[in-house]
Amino acid sequence: MGKDAKLSRPYRVESGKKFRLKDFDPGDTGGLKLEKDHAAEKLEKGVDLLAALQDKLYAQDKRALLLIFQAMDAAGKDGTIKHVMSGVNPQGCQVFAFKAPSAEELDHDFLWRTTKCLPERGRIGIFNRSYYEEVLVVRVHPQILAGQKLPPELVTKRIWDERLEDIAAMERYLTRNGIAVVKFFLNVSKKEQRKRFLDRLEEPDKNWKFALGDVEERKHWDAYQEAYEEAIRATATPWAPWYVVPADAKWYTRLVVASAVIDALERMDLAYPEVDEAKKAELEKAREALATAKG
Amino acid sequence: MGKDAKLSRPYRVESGKKFRLKDFDPGDTGGLKLEKDHAAEKLEKGVDLLAALQDKLYAQDKRALLLIFQAMDAAGKDGTIKHVMSGVNPQGCQVFAFKAPSAEELDHDFLWRTTKCLPERGRIGIFNRSYYEEVLVVRVHPQILAGQKLPPELVTKRIWDERLEDIAAMERYLTRNGIAVVKFFLNVSKKEQRKRFLDRLEEPDKNWKFALGDVEERKHWDAYQEAYEEAIRATATPWAPWYVVPADAKWYTRLVVASAVIDALERMDLAYPEVDEAKKAELEKAREALATAKG
Repeated sequence: MGKDAKLSRPYRVESGKKFRLKDFDPGDTGGLKLEKDHAAEKLEKGVDLLAALQDKLYAQDKRALLLIFQAMDAAGKDGTIKHVMSGVNPQGCQVFAFKAPSAEELDHDFLWRTTKCLPERGRIGIFNRSYYEEVLVVRVHPQILAGQKLPPELVTKRIWDERLEDIAAMERYLTRNGIAVVKFFLNVSKKEQRKRFLDRLEEPDKNWKFALGDVEERKHWDAYQEAYEEAIRATATPWAPWYVVPADAKWYTRLVVASAVIDALERMDLAYPEVDEAKKAELEKAREALATAKG
Repeated sequence: MGKDAKLSRPYRVESGKKFRLKDFDPGDTGGLKLEKDHAAEKLEKGVDLLAALQDKLYAQDKRALLLIFQAMDAAGKDGTIKHVMSGVNPQGCQVFAFKAPSAEELDHDFLWRTTKCLPERGRIGIFNRSYYEEVLVVRVHPQILAGQKLPPELVTKRIWDERLEDIAAMERYLTRNGIAVVKFFLNVSKKEQRKRFLDRLEEPDKNWKFALGDVEERKHWDAYQEAYEEAIRATATPWAPWYVVPADAKWYTRLVVASAVIDALERMDLAYPEVDEAKKAELEKAREALATAKG
């Protein structure tokens, strides 16, 4: 395992047993105190390594990697995706952001819309929010569930446990089909969120990012934390781990996420496709044809 | 218009009248003789500018840009996409590569499969090959057309003109809906293609990229050149221009493409969303709520 991959280990959750969100400090920076330039340089090296691994993933065309980003507002999902994944060949990388479901999407089961967007073999797929919203925002706001057109006999108090079980089973199935799943919870503190909201309100360039609803959601902070804890408990596995990433320092969030992505790729048996004897003979024929060609 | 955008102007084709492919030299480097490092540095500056423009495109969320890449094998499509578009936020950039159509795709009209992949507002969409294959490879190999399950009365000698007319009309429609279309023909010489094929055959790391069919296709070189000329003549317009990009020197290909993408974005009226009075009042309310909040 590379040095880069190690940085993320303390935040990796592979089992729900004993998991408590409060054991994870949003302000943790792993004992590092980097200056801005130094952090950017370190990230750049990580991104280069990541890009090299992704090139092999793409050439091999057998496996895929699904990265899921979940977080409270202003925790830095967009910025992290931008800074960690810029530099990766966009031909091998697909990002999908999931907002409130459309009428067509609500006419389907809750995994349908994200399943359509799963990464093809050889690609890194990124979900900016995901099917986890179905056990987060929907759980915190029961009126959303009421609008999901489900047959009433299926809406019982067991619905959240059932959904989490279905999600875990689906992720197991993906893993069995060569699609590795890694999930990130960007763990921002309520205090830091307030600071970032105030920044957005004060800087005209960031105003457009702000919605009044974002402040409203803060009233449900504890309910969200509980929903995240339940979700991570029920779906953290060695094959589809969660990373609870400290998110109060943006530079550290990015380093941890880059490290975890590198780790996930290094766990795969990546290699450029090998040329077998039949292919070698074919290549020799091609070389002759080219050598004797006129044009 | 920025300096960067100017570089690509000589290769921009806005009208089919008088267009002759042979007027364009694949070996042209615009009088520049850059060392490798210098070219990479120049490209990097272009990519930074492109990334900044793309950020505005994404924030504004009104317009989209569709970039189409067509070329003979080994002209550098993949490398160009990788080098020009790495550095752009993948959240705002979607790449689709189109290979031989599937059975499901053949059950539809020929524009169906690419239409599904058109970029959303705020995004740059990239087609690595596209619906133009329908008037290129299909035109060069009539047996492919025979396999397309078309009603026989619709397959006349006018089919290529009709397809080109349909393509031009569709691109006009896209423009009218806020999706700008820019098309690149990476113009490699037959001689340089041979050199690149031989490189792929000699370097073990590149072997896997090689298919015997690639050499076979060289026999149809002239037919392809004619098909490209016809396609460009019929579909080059001021709103959906072609760029005939010199492709014998990779570093120059990348500079020209980066310049053309910058040009396309600079022609749009891009700006971060403005905050109106209603929104300003909302923001003030949010600020108060945050200021008085306990948590």
